[in-house]
Amino acid sequence: MPQLDDLATPAALLDTARMQANIARMQRHLDGLGVRFRPHVKTSKCLPVVQAQLAAGARGITVSTLKEAEQFFAAGITDILYAVCIAPGRLPQALALRARGCDLKVVTDSMAGAQAIVDAARAQGVALEVWIEVDVDGHRSGVPPGSALLLQVGRVLHDGGLPLGGVMAHAGSSYGCDAPEALHRVALQERDGTVLAAQRLRDAGLPCPGVSIGSTPTALAAQDLSGVTEVRAGVYVFFDLVMHNVGVCGVGDIALSVLTTVIGHQPDKGWAIVDAGWMALSRDRGTQAQQHDYAYGQVCAADGTPLPGWLVTGANQEHGIVALADGTATDVAQRFPLGTRLRVLPNHACATAAQHPAYVAVQPDGRTHTWPRFHGW
Amino acid sequence: MPQLDDLATPAALLDTARMQANIARMQRHLDGLGVRFRPHVKTSKCLPVVQAQLAAGARGITVSTLKEAEQFFAAGITDILYAVCIAPGRLPQALALRARGCDLKVVTDSMAGAQAIVDAARAQGVALEVWIEVDVDGHRSGVPPGSALLLQVGRVLHDGGLPLGGVMAHAGSSYGCDAPEALHRVALQERDGTVLAAQRLRDAGLPCPGVSIGSTPTALAAQDLSGVTEVRAGVYVFFDLVMHNVGVCGVGDIALSVLTTVIGHQPDKGWAIVDAGWMALSRDRGTQAQQHDYAYGQVCAADGTPLPGWLVTGANQEHGIVALADGTATDVAQRFPLGTRLRVLPNHACATAAQHPAYVAVQPDGRTHTWPRFHGW
Repeated sequence: MPQLDDLATPAALLDTARMQANIARMQRHLDGLGVRFRPHVKTSKCLPVVQAQLAAGARGITVSTLKEAEQFFAAGITDILYAVCIAPGRLPQALALRARGCDLKVVTDSMAGAQAIVDAARAQGVALEVWIEVDVDGHRSGVPPGSALLLQVGRVLHDGGLPLGGVMAHAGSSYGCDAPEALHRVALQERDGTVLAAQRLRDAGLPCPGVSIGSTPTALAAQDLSGVTEVRAGVYVFFDLVMHNVGVCGVGDIALSVLTTVIGHQPDKGWAIVDAGWMALSRDRGTQAQQHDYAYGQVCAADGTPLPGWLVTGANQEHGIVALADGTATDVAQRFPLGTRLRVLPNHACATAAQHPAYVAVQPDGRTHTWPRFHGW
Repeated sequence: MPQLDDLATPAALLDTARMQANIARMQRHLDGLGVRFRPHVKTSKCLPVVQAQLAAGARGITVSTLKEAEQFFAAGITDILYAVCIAPGRLPQALALRARGCDLKVVTDSMAGAQAIVDAARAQGVALEVWIEVDVDGHRSGVPPGSALLLQVGRVLHDGGLPLGGVMAHAGSSYGCDAPEALHRVALQERDGTVLAAQRLRDAGLPCPGVSIGSTPTALAAQDLSGVTEVRAGVYVFFDLVMHNVGVCGVGDIALSVLTTVIGHQPDKGWAIVDAGWMALSRDRGTQAQQHDYAYGQVCAADGTPLPGWLVTGANQEHGIVALADGTATDVAQRFPLGTRLRVLPNHACATAAQHPAYVAVQPDGRTHTWPRFHGW
């Protein structure tokens, strides 16, 4: 069981105490609102993380790929919502999962999609539960909650003999908020649009037991979820600098960081060069358009203490440039001698985690475990 | 041996005919200039690709991580330049490779780095060949070619009993060029700075047999490489939209693309939603600051024919938004019905390839092979 000091860099560190606190916070919040919690596992793609979420009270999981569904079903998790409208070519794989006993639910937002699911399910003689995606903020997929299309899609599924599981929405525009009032408005819009869609389906005589909403910001902003049956959220488990800018976590809540080593300096420029480039940090620049731009990440000491003003200001594949945000040159080679270890907090935890085959889970006592994560589709 | 039509999406397609043409072009060019070619394998991290480069005449390889060195050494490739200044904590791993017979060369650009290598090599009784990194354009690492530091670093290594293999430089600023004249100037600057550094070491009585330069743009722009012994380049093997903007390849030379499927539409916005988001495309927006911004990539028909004006204009984790660059709404659901397969050409091939566990190598006859690539460090 290696200690932190023995780790080769770059490495994705997971502070398990922070992660557990994040899990407990979300579960407590949603328990208080009387809704089920179905975490989105696309952030971690890691069994021990998801087991911790389920142990804390989560019921079922949300996935972004059928690879995630396959992997978590193999680990014994059966209640799975695949929350991306399914490509017709992926239907045989989804039906095979269902036939093997996985309680997989798929999503569509079109007549063509609904018909493709009906046809494939009929051809294979397998009933596949379907949810309809609702568009509550115009940011991506889904049918408008007040549209005729919503009822038409529901009718195709129901008449095609498929169980209509419910409606689901994701207010992705919440990532663009940076004030509590704006976030509260988006959260209400997500709830109201999704509840409206469910009511319209029921009024039309169609079943709609499930009403599923969620994003980390709107889940944490919600104060009243009347009419909602479940909430989904993903990145809350690690948090990141984007979520800090949105205002839903402190920098001290961020559980994921990249451990890196100083490999050189350009003293005249005030640069320390580190061995975490974009391959270790990702190219995600999600804070660029936010109130505080963290460039490629906030630099911390090896123990995780943030070093104010120090950012990864540039990144090539395996090189990061650590410098003060204001560009002032300092005695950087004295401050961060060759071999110094630093941590970098990520802009976007989902993207940074995806660059690593495994997490190094660090316990409060400094002991570490390797937690593998899935890669690919 | 599955055909293209049978592939699940998203998938990283590799057009092997284009790749072979790119390999042949670079090798022919450098053969004509009378220098060795040492391709940078960080782009592909894939054995069949590197075997094709070696079969065409490349001699030795360049790596960006010791994982790459380990993997390619295990496949029988021994002449390896690790072209990132080595972290002191990685020296035992490098020395172990050397002790096992790998002709691994490491790089440093500081007194502290040189001393760390000397100390580690002495402690383990293994001679490790070292190259000195030279900074020719101020973009990242390296010592200035005219500096006293260059000679001091060389002296530490030589007096420490280590073989001084040569000097190496990478004119990363060439990626910012978009005119042949500017590119030519950077190429001359890379050559002249590196040759100067070598000459100064030799004049000081230090050995400096190797003079290594390279980046894809400067390698292709070079017309006279007097004094240079070898060239390194990586992304040329696949090319990408950044390189097209720099002016060193046509769109039709780009060998890497992401195959994707239409999973929905927002007809009022002129959007088709596809199953390639940033997880499949990467977050790299390298064309953003160039003369032509391709957003998250150029959209092509399934057969690879570019569709002018159609870009992936937005990307979430597993969703891409395909739209016309000028934002005009069209009959997008008729043009790209649900299930339509498209290809996306990448901004930056190194970053896009890294998102995939394997390539689907597509032969001219449409047959496909799975070529795995490494992940992690």
